[in-house]
Amino acid sequence: MDPGLASTGWGIVEQAGNAVRYLSHGCISTESSSPQGERLFFIHREFGRILEEWKPQQSATETLYFGRNVSSAIPVAEARGIVLLALTQFGIPLLEFRPIAVKQGVVGQTVADKKQVQLMVKVILGLKQIPRPQHAADALALAICAARCPAGADAPA
Amino acid sequence: MDPGLASTGWGIVEQAGNAVRYLSHGCISTESSSPQGERLFFIHREFGRILEEWKPQQSATETLYFGRNVSSAIPVAEARGIVLLALTQFGIPLLEFRPIAVKQGVVGQTVADKKQVQLMVKVILGLKQIPRPQHAADALALAICAARCPAGADAPA
Repeated sequence: MDPGLASTGWGIVEQAGNAVRYLSHGCISTESSSPQGERLFFIHREFGRILEEWKPQQSATETLYFGRNVSSAIPVAEARGIVLLALTQFGIPLLEFRPIAVKQGVVGQTVADKKQVQLMVKVILGLKQIPRPQHAADALALAICAARCPAGADAPA
Repeated sequence: MDPGLASTGWGIVEQAGNAVRYLSHGCISTESSSPQGERLFFIHREFGRILEEWKPQQSATETLYFGRNVSSAIPVAEARGIVLLALTQFGIPLLEFRPIAVKQGVVGQTVADKKQVQLMVKVILGLKQIPRPQHAADALALAICAARCPAGADAPA
């Protein structure tokens, strides 16, 4: 998944032999006009419902990088905390992938732009279109990485 | 309270007329060697227990500032998300105070160092010593502000 206070993208895939099969994706969106506690509460509840419905054996997220803008990193970190709490409550292990490892895992090379990654997500999962919104496509990219590299996480990068 | 991934300080006071009465304080500490999800899970559980025990009518935290180091802000923000979730789950309103408002509320002036704030926390609450650890003293300072300024939060600064 790709957590954020405004949008938490999620994607579910299944490993079928050497293939990765698409199951579902979506995005938990919250209104910026709502109190912050309510937004976090909503993310926790909705993410819990998704875990309850799909019962994933594994989860994956991107390693938080500190090079980015602090004011944008703070709400991401708050939402990330909520998502990690829910995963722990459901006993689901988490893999973390660096951006370079996601590119390697999905596109097959460490140099790729966001569009290339999204296009490969569509191709790998046999979808008619690039999944929307972008946070959900990013979440599916992470799910593909976890399915392809269930043990090593960041190892290949 | 004063949230953090390693240490979440908390303090409980009671308003008794014009006075502020000390009730309790403490710190939820987690091991840096534990998986992050487990640390957040522990904070959520322990903070929930404190809310369950003391049933506060109001809570207060410091406004997150972005001037600080990002790598130290991230784990604080993750823990803060957990604490805000727990408060919302218990239906407890949150006040946010800027550092300058905490100094004004506790010391009575906007220019004061951490030591002065902690000393005034001790004096106001009639304690024999400055509460330890520092995160708990900071949490009590915020609790004093909330008790003295239950409506306005950041207004006086």
